[in-house]
Amino acid sequence: MKKKNKKVNAAILIIGNEILSGRTKDKNIPFLANWLNLKCGISVEEVRVIPDVEKTIIENIKIMSKKFNYVFTTGGIGPTHDDITALSIAKAFRLKYAYHQEAYTILENYYGKKNFNDGRKKMAKTPVGAKLIYNPSSAAPGFMTKNVLSLPGVPSILNSMIENCKRYLVKGLKVHSKTINLSTVESNISAGLSSIQKKFRKSVDIGSYPFFRLGKIGVSVVSRSTSKKKLSIVQKEIFKLAILKKIKVVKFKSN
Amino acid sequence: MKKKNKKVNAAILIIGNEILSGRTKDKNIPFLANWLNLKCGISVEEVRVIPDVEKTIIENIKIMSKKFNYVFTTGGIGPTHDDITALSIAKAFRLKYAYHQEAYTILENYYGKKNFNDGRKKMAKTPVGAKLIYNPSSAAPGFMTKNVLSLPGVPSILNSMIENCKRYLVKGLKVHSKTINLSTVESNISAGLSSIQKKFRKSVDIGSYPFFRLGKIGVSVVSRSTSKKKLSIVQKEIFKLAILKKIKVVKFKSN
Repeated sequence: MKKKNKKVNAAILIIGNEILSGRTKDKNIPFLANWLNLKCGISVEEVRVIPDVEKTIIENIKIMSKKFNYVFTTGGIGPTHDDITALSIAKAFRLKYAYHQEAYTILENYYGKKNFNDGRKKMAKTPVGAKLIYNPSSAAPGFMTKNVLSLPGVPSILNSMIENCKRYLVKGLKVHSKTINLSTVESNISAGLSSIQKKFRKSVDIGSYPFFRLGKIGVSVVSRSTSKKKLSIVQKEIFKLAILKKIKVVKFKSN
Repeated sequence: MKKKNKKVNAAILIIGNEILSGRTKDKNIPFLANWLNLKCGISVEEVRVIPDVEKTIIENIKIMSKKFNYVFTTGGIGPTHDDITALSIAKAFRLKYAYHQEAYTILENYYGKKNFNDGRKKMAKTPVGAKLIYNPSSAAPGFMTKNVLSLPGVPSILNSMIENCKRYLVKGLKVHSKTINLSTVESNISAGLSSIQKKFRKSVDIGSYPFFRLGKIGVSVVSRSTSKKKLSIVQKEIFKLAILKKIKVVKFKSN
């Protein structure tokens, strides 16, 4: 993975009627968001969930591939009629959609010539020029077309493939994050936090999130920055605010 | 809730850096998707997750409120500096952003005059003309601006308010859904399913999803339609396909 000394961003495009209908709970958004932010220094700037509709996929690929350094798609790369991600991406970039020779060989070896039916062959089709993302758990590869990386929708398979995306990615500046849990309510610290945020508006993002955890209620104040130094100054200011307001700091094991 | 004899759709806009960073796992998408689809006959057509950035919120509200019958936003309606949903929606619709008299009274009564500080007062501000969505669990109301309904990000509070959205919604045609679990792999039924889908492409959506459940692997074939009659014909065709291919049908308690 190459390194770049600046911010690199990505968007996630979840393709699947089953998430929109509520039938399936998405697990790929938090997994990809954590992996990209923490392991790759790539900040996720937008997520969209869209249906298995060709026109909609094409439209979103066009917009998002222009707007972000990388787009990760999940879903729609299996053997059935509702798997139209590869074809739609080919159309979005005006590329031909054809057998990828290496993918074809991988799948033919995996299933055996006799059992390599049309559905399975379909999984060897990609936009022409796509690079493969190898799949150690069920053979059918993902693929990268321009800056769009296409992964399957089944979380366990996606997870098994994710490290194979790294070779194609440029690593960005890592965003560091610190959390302080305060035993208070948001409205008690809103003015104080607001003035700290104003002072550091160019370098640190401060978010505040109410929590109800292990019988305690309070507010998690999360600061995020590419600069560890700025982050540590902001932490000190938040502790000062807590002392001033006589607010107890709560510690959880997972912080 | 009024009824309408045609399809009604909605989009969900999750506003929150904490979801994009991976720190917080979203729980509102599946909750809202289920509630809208199953309880209201409102089909969810798109979900977006965006950061707490005014320009981005404004842009998305403008696009999505034109494209869908309803837009549900979550997050960003608390008392702190990163709660900018109400102001951003006001700007998107070129409305003034000011105290909502009834919200002001509700919150003043809830906190008491003495404890009604600026942070808390902020939660009484909405785009002018917004209608309130009452909050039985923590007082601070959500609000509806034109066709945009704004709810909080904390799932337990959102859940407690959801029934209070109903008065503002028009009920659409219910989409019925049937699942058949087949003890097979997708590529074995892809050609068969594809030809059933072609025959019913105008009335039924067929999706196929591999499963790994209770030690069994297989494929869930989900059919969705506003017509119960068409749905039942499609079910019969899928059962025929299973018999033809000598595939066992698996039953789970939750289907």
